[in-house]
Amino acid sequence: MSAFESTNQTEIAGAHLYRNNARAIEISNENWEKAKENNLTHLKVNFSGRNESYELIETGKEFINICSCSYLGLSSHPAILQGAIDAIKKEKVLHLAMSTLRIRLGMKQRLEDELSSLFNTTVIQVLSASVANAGVLPVLASGHLTDGKPLVMVFDRFSHFSMAYMKPACADETMVLTCPNNDLNYIEDVCKKYPRVAYVTDGVYSMGGIATLPGLLELQEKYGLFLFFDDSHSISIKWKVGEGYIASQLNEINDRMVIIGSLGKGFGANGGIIMLGATKHADILRRYGGPMGWSQDMNVPGMGAALASLEIHKTPELTALQEKLEENIALFDELYPTANAGNGFPIRLATFGHEDDAVAAAKKMFDYGFYTSPVFFPIVARGKAGIRVMLRANLEREEVVRLCDCLKKTEVDIKG
Amino acid sequence: MSAFESTNQTEIAGAHLYRNNARAIEISNENWEKAKENNLTHLKVNFSGRNESYELIETGKEFINICSCSYLGLSSHPAILQGAIDAIKKEKVLHLAMSTLRIRLGMKQRLEDELSSLFNTTVIQVLSASVANAGVLPVLASGHLTDGKPLVMVFDRFSHFSMAYMKPACADETMVLTCPNNDLNYIEDVCKKYPRVAYVTDGVYSMGGIATLPGLLELQEKYGLFLFFDDSHSISIKWKVGEGYIASQLNEINDRMVIIGSLGKGFGANGGIIMLGATKHADILRRYGGPMGWSQDMNVPGMGAALASLEIHKTPELTALQEKLEENIALFDELYPTANAGNGFPIRLATFGHEDDAVAAAKKMFDYGFYTSPVFFPIVARGKAGIRVMLRANLEREEVVRLCDCLKKTEVDIKG
Repeated sequence: MSAFESTNQTEIAGAHLYRNNARAIEISNENWEKAKENNLTHLKVNFSGRNESYELIETGKEFINICSCSYLGLSSHPAILQGAIDAIKKEKVLHLAMSTLRIRLGMKQRLEDELSSLFNTTVIQVLSASVANAGVLPVLASGHLTDGKPLVMVFDRFSHFSMAYMKPACADETMVLTCPNNDLNYIEDVCKKYPRVAYVTDGVYSMGGIATLPGLLELQEKYGLFLFFDDSHSISIKWKVGEGYIASQLNEINDRMVIIGSLGKGFGANGGIIMLGATKHADILRRYGGPMGWSQDMNVPGMGAALASLEIHKTPELTALQEKLEENIALFDELYPTANAGNGFPIRLATFGHEDDAVAAAKKMFDYGFYTSPVFFPIVARGKAGIRVMLRANLEREEVVRLCDCLKKTEVDIKG
Repeated sequence: MSAFESTNQTEIAGAHLYRNNARAIEISNENWEKAKENNLTHLKVNFSGRNESYELIETGKEFINICSCSYLGLSSHPAILQGAIDAIKKEKVLHLAMSTLRIRLGMKQRLEDELSSLFNTTVIQVLSASVANAGVLPVLASGHLTDGKPLVMVFDRFSHFSMAYMKPACADETMVLTCPNNDLNYIEDVCKKYPRVAYVTDGVYSMGGIATLPGLLELQEKYGLFLFFDDSHSISIKWKVGEGYIASQLNEINDRMVIIGSLGKGFGANGGIIMLGATKHADILRRYGGPMGWSQDMNVPGMGAALASLEIHKTPELTALQEKLEENIALFDELYPTANAGNGFPIRLATFGHEDDAVAAAKKMFDYGFYTSPVFFPIVARGKAGIRVMLRANLEREEVVRLCDCLKKTEVDIKG
């Protein structure tokens, strides 16, 4: 006899409370297939210039990528590339191949210290923003960023997959709920019923909307609501030091607040950050935050790139890039207004409705020389498929004008 | 009224079927505190030489790190560092800041192609081995690497945290069980009861043991058992092309098998790999494998380093490094025999029993100039605390001799 305790249970399917691969695949895989058939996925390219223009290796076709999260164009900035190179030369090692909880390079410490100083809060720097989400959320759920007692975790329905992915883990620690997008009434009703509640959402949503911060701060004031934001899409792109949308609106990141950020989007380097209000819990997080403590951390060139980007963040060059991005966003909104026009953020969604139309639109745009990505359920709601457009500082005025012209032509072609 | 459906439920704590932060922290946090008080965590260092010798920034103390997973010393190999630098210069971008499912650099494709060719199977290359585990396991659980029907997932109790971390997500898709370490009878009993079963474990365990491969292959033959291995600790360190323990024992990685590997340990670069038997399911995995499809992938220098390491893997230099590692392991086993002596792998655990003794032993070893890491529950069983020693090719013979002498002295000091 082995230790296996056999039961009468024959049906093995899980409860599918928080995820359901079969359903997701049934609904959306055919759209992925169509995108692939139309050569809109699996593109292999050479990077060929300053403005995210690429050459398709197979055919030599040149196009501009309008789906890069490098909003300020910093990921190809010469000083940042040089920072990566210099770091390798200086440290003479690619990474330490062990947990940074035990041993870390001085350069890693300097990076965390400088990020903490720039953003005026305790910053823990990790391999990616999704590693940050995977590490922090279960520790928050069990109450170990607060008083040790579990919190009801309310996930916004639009919170990024990297957060939703952790719902089952959180649900093994505490109660997990999913609320309609930005629904303050829902969140308040949960706060009225339970003494400890955390709300989990994006600062700027990956499809372009933003969190309802003022209302959330009121709920925090009134009920002690814990606020967890992934603000990856807004780091660097605005504000004095590029502190991101949420942090820019606060006097301080208080001890009932965590902000996750990416250093791989606007910031122009790699990796993710945790801006931690509850500094006294940093050790707990480093020890029990799962992937945060495993052996693979951001490599030395990534650190060097981040340190070089930090220097740019202290100069007027940052402001100039932010202004150029702002101009491009405004120009786009003027020429091609979409639902989020005027919100000042770079992500726009041109909605086409049916999934086939979204794929056809993306194909047409690609023929015109712009890569925009078709998005469909579960990325957006069913029947709301569209193409995602992400503006950047390193697009010339005439390129934005041409982009909008092509979107209009495509719209006429598709919608008639 | 909001959409929140209030219930009478006042207790919010989760079922704690697969994880329990409160218990883990209660049991082990004081040990982490002791390790920290004894300056065995949070060490800040400069890398100072070829053999993972470091300088402690605070005091200038020099020591050799015996806890690096860079088993062949490749993470500081000049050709690999140069590969990272050259890649930045060639590509002129740090990364594309978008999902590789949509657009990827030619260099990324070349890396996957060359890894597939070297390891003679379909390889998907991702940000880290833990990202690979997080991405693949739920897709395997729901049956989307097989016939679309869920499999009972049997996790070995010793499987690495990065796998155990995904139990709750898998349990939302299917039945999840945890079996005693290497317990073939248990696994067979599950196979007798259920038609679809996957066993999830390490190839070489992070505390030094190995999987019971021959018995597992018999169960696969007899019942169609799906085998999922994380073989991160054994990539590169032995065998013709460094294919890892599991792959080295097989004629082919069949379509009921997945092997995860790390490129950040023996391989000397960064990132993780998925060796996929069921090639036809690769697209499903790229689309629905969570973090595998999000925007942060391994950066360009990491790719350049990996390509440079691939070149080394085709030369006699690999064999020479492997032989040097083998000599060092044999010498260690001869001079300081431990439970896993003779198994040919580089991880050894010197057991001290009580947690305080393990911390004291690590402190003494550090005073002698060797960083070994104290490990305690939940990394090892309670009351089995010890210090972990990881051998490398880039240790001189006299350093291994001195290491063993110091371990013996420490043992006398602690155990009397």
